[in-house]
Amino acid sequence: MKISIIGASGYSGAELLNLLLGRRGIEIEKVFANSSAGKKVEEVYPFFRSRTDLTYEEYSAEKIRTSDVVFIALPSGEAMHIVPELLKTGKRVIDLGGDFRLKDASLYSRFYKRAHAAADILPKAVYGLPEWNTSAIASAHLLSNPGCYATSAILALVPVLKDNLIEATGIAVSSLSGVSGAGKNATLDYSFTELNESVRAYKVAVHQHTPEMKSVLENISRQNVSLTFVPHLIPITRGIYTTIYARPKKAFTKDEIIASFKKHYSNAPFVRFIGEAVPEIKHVNYTNFCDIGFKIDLENNLLIIMSVIDNLVKGAAGQAIQNMNIMFGMNETEGLL
Amino acid sequence: MKISIIGASGYSGAELLNLLLGRRGIEIEKVFANSSAGKKVEEVYPFFRSRTDLTYEEYSAEKIRTSDVVFIALPSGEAMHIVPELLKTGKRVIDLGGDFRLKDASLYSRFYKRAHAAADILPKAVYGLPEWNTSAIASAHLLSNPGCYATSAILALVPVLKDNLIEATGIAVSSLSGVSGAGKNATLDYSFTELNESVRAYKVAVHQHTPEMKSVLENISRQNVSLTFVPHLIPITRGIYTTIYARPKKAFTKDEIIASFKKHYSNAPFVRFIGEAVPEIKHVNYTNFCDIGFKIDLENNLLIIMSVIDNLVKGAAGQAIQNMNIMFGMNETEGLL
Amino acid sequence: MKISIIGASGYSGAELLNLLLGRRGIEIEKVFANSSAGKKVEEVYPFFRSRTDLTYEEYSAEKIRTSDVVFIALPSGEAMHIVPELLKTGKRVIDLGGDFRLKDASLYSRFYKRAHAAADILPKAVYGLPEWNTSAIASAHLLSNPGCYATSAILALVPVLKDNLIEATGIAVSSLSGVSGAGKNATLDYSFTELNESVRAYKVAVHQHTPEMKSVLENISRQNVSLTFVPHLIPITRGIYTTIYARPKKAFTKDEIIASFKKHYSNAPFVRFIGEAVPEIKHVNYTNFCDIGFKIDLENNLLIIMSVIDNLVKGAAGQAIQNMNIMFGMNETEGLL
Amino acid sequence: MKISIIGASGYSGAELLNLLLGRRGIEIEKVFANSSAGKKVEEVYPFFRSRTDLTYEEYSAEKIRTSDVVFIALPSGEAMHIVPELLKTGKRVIDLGGDFRLKDASLYSRFYKRAHAAADILPKAVYGLPEWNTSAIASAHLLSNPGCYATSAILALVPVLKDNLIEATGIAVSSLSGVSGAGKNATLDYSFTELNESVRAYKVAVHQHTPEMKSVLENISRQNVSLTFVPHLIPITRGIYTTIYARPKKAFTKDEIIASFKKHYSNAPFVRFIGEAVPEIKHVNYTNFCDIGFKIDLENNLLIIMSVIDNLVKGAAGQAIQNMNIMFGMNETEGLL
Repeated sequence: MKISIIGASGYSGAELLNLLLGRRGIEIEKVFANSSAGKKVEEVYPFFRSRTDLTYEEYSAEKIRTSDVVFIALPSGEAMHIVPELLKTGKRVIDLGGDFRLKDASLYSRFYKRAHAAADILPKAVYGLPEWNTSAIASAHLLSNPGCYATSAILALVPVLKDNLIEATGIAVSSLSGVSGAGKNATLDYSFTELNESVRAYKVAVHQHTPEMKSVLENISRQNVSLTFVPHLIPITRGIYTTIYARPKKAFTKDEIIASFKKHYSNAPFVRFIGEAVPEIKHVNYTNFCDIGFKIDLENNLLIIMSVIDNLVKGAAGQAIQNMNIMFGMNETEGLL
Repeated sequence: MKISIIGASGYSGAELLNLLLGRRGIEIEKVFANSSAGKKVEEVYPFFRSRTDLTYEEYSAEKIRTSDVVFIALPSGEAMHIVPELLKTGKRVIDLGGDFRLKDASLYSRFYKRAHAAADILPKAVYGLPEWNTSAIASAHLLSNPGCYATSAILALVPVLKDNLIEATGIAVSSLSGVSGAGKNATLDYSFTELNESVRAYKVAVHQHTPEMKSVLENISRQNVSLTFVPHLIPITRGIYTTIYARPKKAFTKDEIIASFKKHYSNAPFVRFIGEAVPEIKHVNYTNFCDIGFKIDLENNLLIIMSVIDNLVKGAAGQAIQNMNIMFGMNETEGLL
Repeated sequence: MKISIIGASGYSGAELLNLLLGRRGIEIEKVFANSSAGKKVEEVYPFFRSRTDLTYEEYSAEKIRTSDVVFIALPSGEAMHIVPELLKTGKRVIDLGGDFRLKDASLYSRFYKRAHAAADILPKAVYGLPEWNTSAIASAHLLSNPGCYATSAILALVPVLKDNLIEATGIAVSSLSGVSGAGKNATLDYSFTELNESVRAYKVAVHQHTPEMKSVLENISRQNVSLTFVPHLIPITRGIYTTIYARPKKAFTKDEIIASFKKHYSNAPFVRFIGEAVPEIKHVNYTNFCDIGFKIDLENNLLIIMSVIDNLVKGAAGQAIQNMNIMFGMNETEGLL
Repeated sequence: MKISIIGASGYSGAELLNLLLGRRGIEIEKVFANSSAGKKVEEVYPFFRSRTDLTYEEYSAEKIRTSDVVFIALPSGEAMHIVPELLKTGKRVIDLGGDFRLKDASLYSRFYKRAHAAADILPKAVYGLPEWNTSAIASAHLLSNPGCYATSAILALVPVLKDNLIEATGIAVSSLSGVSGAGKNATLDYSFTELNESVRAYKVAVHQHTPEMKSVLENISRQNVSLTFVPHLIPITRGIYTTIYARPKKAFTKDEIIASFKKHYSNAPFVRFIGEAVPEIKHVNYTNFCDIGFKIDLENNLLIIMSVIDNLVKGAAGQAIQNMNIMFGMNETEGLL
């Protein structure tokens, strides 16, 4: 099986390479990165020294000849310009960016601050959350890989929303993210000195993963959902910690919560429900796992759910490979354990 | 003016020393620390080399002769055993621990997991939040310095609760803290390797600052308040970031929020209300400031308030000195700017 | 093939597990850890949730029945008490600690501050630096895995010493280490707050890896070697950065240095000589690679060599597995790329 | 007394402001920063909220009217274009950059990679290392504040060089620096993700502080000095750790080393000689102190000296203020303790 990667010089692209290089049965045909065209991968990422001789090339669709699947790891706003042409070649496409996550082009333009250039193919895009969408993923031609924050929040909320345990309104999603989530950033705001030993919230209640969480949760739980999402940048490299505050729909016991998560995730190889234990980022970093725990605050009538992932693996490259495995009939966990 | 410190070898005690050494008109009579008795301060904290010749002594009340005020910076559970005797000497006492923050001894035993040994003097203790309690502080003999998390949450919530802008129930308080907040900790859980590049929530909905927040907010806003508090440990040394999610009581505009904060804090020298800007820990670290910002999420009907402090300064030693200044009729900001 | 691990609850033991779990053809028979006996591995390291059901047991030699090789990942000073008995069972042993690295028991007692309890078997121990000792490793029954600092320094120095390019005296080895190198440490000195945002040198010129470097370099280069070694603890979790200052034996060109390294390491799969480039810890972390670069300071007549490894992989568990691969006739890189 | 700052929006400029704001008897006339002209200081550094109303202005010499002294905190290469004009106004100038540290314009062009634009005034510049140059500093009109690395290395080496205890050749200076030393850096190389959990040496043996160390040491010790300097970037915000390896000139005892340092620094208020103790960055951060310790490695005939400073205080703004104090006949420690 052959694959190519467009946008292979960013952190998600590099993580894709890291996970795919050396995997039996996978051959990498092309790695595209316009900004690094002509450079060997190991020049940009010396981490790959002696592991690959691949050289970044400037992207053009014709250069991809034998790939069965093409990963796109470009910043949001770029994939929509190349996907229509790519799909015409018959290749299956997995987009790690945000361009095909929202079905509604007007929501896209509102949250991504630009018009959508390929609104007509939005209906074709399959949202690649394997725990909830396996069969559609299996036959997808255009797969849209979920956002990192969205992955952590949706996996934590779906069971209790679907089982009608919590109110679908007034949900507060508070996330902490490592800095790699912002991609390669040559700006003062993302310099070491500005971020170290500090914390800042950003895009408070206007982050582009908010409508993604809302619409996916509505689709799966079949009800209107309203939630506020506040992401915070913290001085670590990898990892997302999401803490969710939701009001119970009725009095419930912790056993009902446990039963709900167990029912929905007993067959999900990458979701580890840990009951009333508290998850930690270090338990999932460099893996494709999502750990989910909860606490009930009886006195104040709130359910607290905590969920952690590695933003570059389950939040990006790992989940993309999990999707690829499903699309091509392989074992979902192949190359990820 | 003379002062003594009991428990001067912990991080809050060291910060007290750092802020008081070299301040004109302040003389330090005694520094007590049973675990370091006989050692010079600079042996335990080489940071103080050449700044002081003080030596830690084993505590006994009689050794304090000329101090006008005694700071207690012991772990919670210890001050209650020595305060009754100390008060009899007529000295004014400022306790930085948790023993005198709750008026209700049964709440204390529930959240601090031990019986209160001096429940009879709880009514005498004055809660030292200078922004809301100045006149009582001025005449206090036993002053209880607020908890670090409590300081950040209470300062952020009082204006909008008092002005009836938000519902007093279902409030979610999500805090991130630097590790110095846990004090000197010779345990694996607080070792560098276990905390670095990770995050963990702890004491979810059962932290001892929860009843402190609740009771102080109820006292000041004169209504029942229910809130959930989730603290998270993040890999920084100093600083607390508190993000609060609350439901509006009625439709309000951002101008009403701004007016509320401005009205209450225009004369508070250490609260910097920054409107719809986002606070960052680095803006307040090593200072006694609390920065507070907010956002309204109209669509989801939630008010988000963010507040930051340095847990060792405004959250401990700095606030204690601010209280001392008020108690002794000095300028509130003396030695703190 | 079956393996067991003694001391499997420390960081090196956990890294061994991480590298061996799921490797085809490897079965783990027993994991011993007296301090965690009775606990599942995933209780001590939730990182392993859903990856293994192994339970730590209290160690006794008889419990190991079918293992072909036994890894010992105990703190130095413990292996010497159990290795003699283990060897009698005929099992091959790989010790990751320091007990069998020095051939001279008096050096051991001087630097490790205790008498050696099994001095008689020191001659049998094979020093497991695969790049320089392959054939002895292949037939070893007792393999002593090199120290982390020693690995980084020896790999950097051997070529130029062996080729007589530098003076064998007055060499200065300056190393920086991540905190995981100190093992699990429930002491104040290794707490987050004490190490973060700081640096400290320790065991200056008396670290126990000094005689290891010296004796191994003398053995391989067949000359007396004298070197000073200063380790520094820096606030990162993993990685060692070693910078070496050595005086040229004669005038040499950079091409001679390049030729020396290339000659000696062209067949070493885990040494990446990068010429006059500067290595960085992030390029080797989570891998078994050692990256080595150099600069000549003509004006001041010094050669500077820089070498980096991940202390838990090439500096411990990874190198131990590389040695196991060689001992059992497998490909040296099996399970490590 | 009035002061102005040119280049007040960089880290050193901000630290100057932090140290000078609120100091009795000091008034700040102007803060210049072309890139931030028109912005209030608190917009660029919210840390200063409520502490100052100053606004950055575009620089022109005529705007400075009443200042007694002008600090220049511009990147190297800019001060040389404005100092000649400034000096003509009669104002005393303290330059924190590198333009006037080397007396030899050809050395400047070699290490700073540009021609010197004001070579004719190089002879007038006084090197501002207060511990060794007090009287010249007192009467200086153009004061050149030492480099951060240079400060830590020179203070550590002068006593033993001057007292002929070590060889003046073959000295190796190995330094670790926090990232703020690189200034405000909007480049990928200085982004959080690229620096965190890693280390890299840079400008190996070609750093511009090398000729500064060499020439200052030669001037003070009156002999030729040759040294190699290797700086390493480590993931902390502030602080420099310098470890020096030098060969003894003759057999000496530790008492001779101790005597040498004590003799030279007994009256230096900001140098804390700590004998055979090991310095740590956290003991000096946010202070103007330089802590110096040493070890003798008898067996290998090397003296190891370790020295630590805060690069933004003793390595920049603090030392500049110490120099100002001396230039204007104030107590050297004024505003710095």
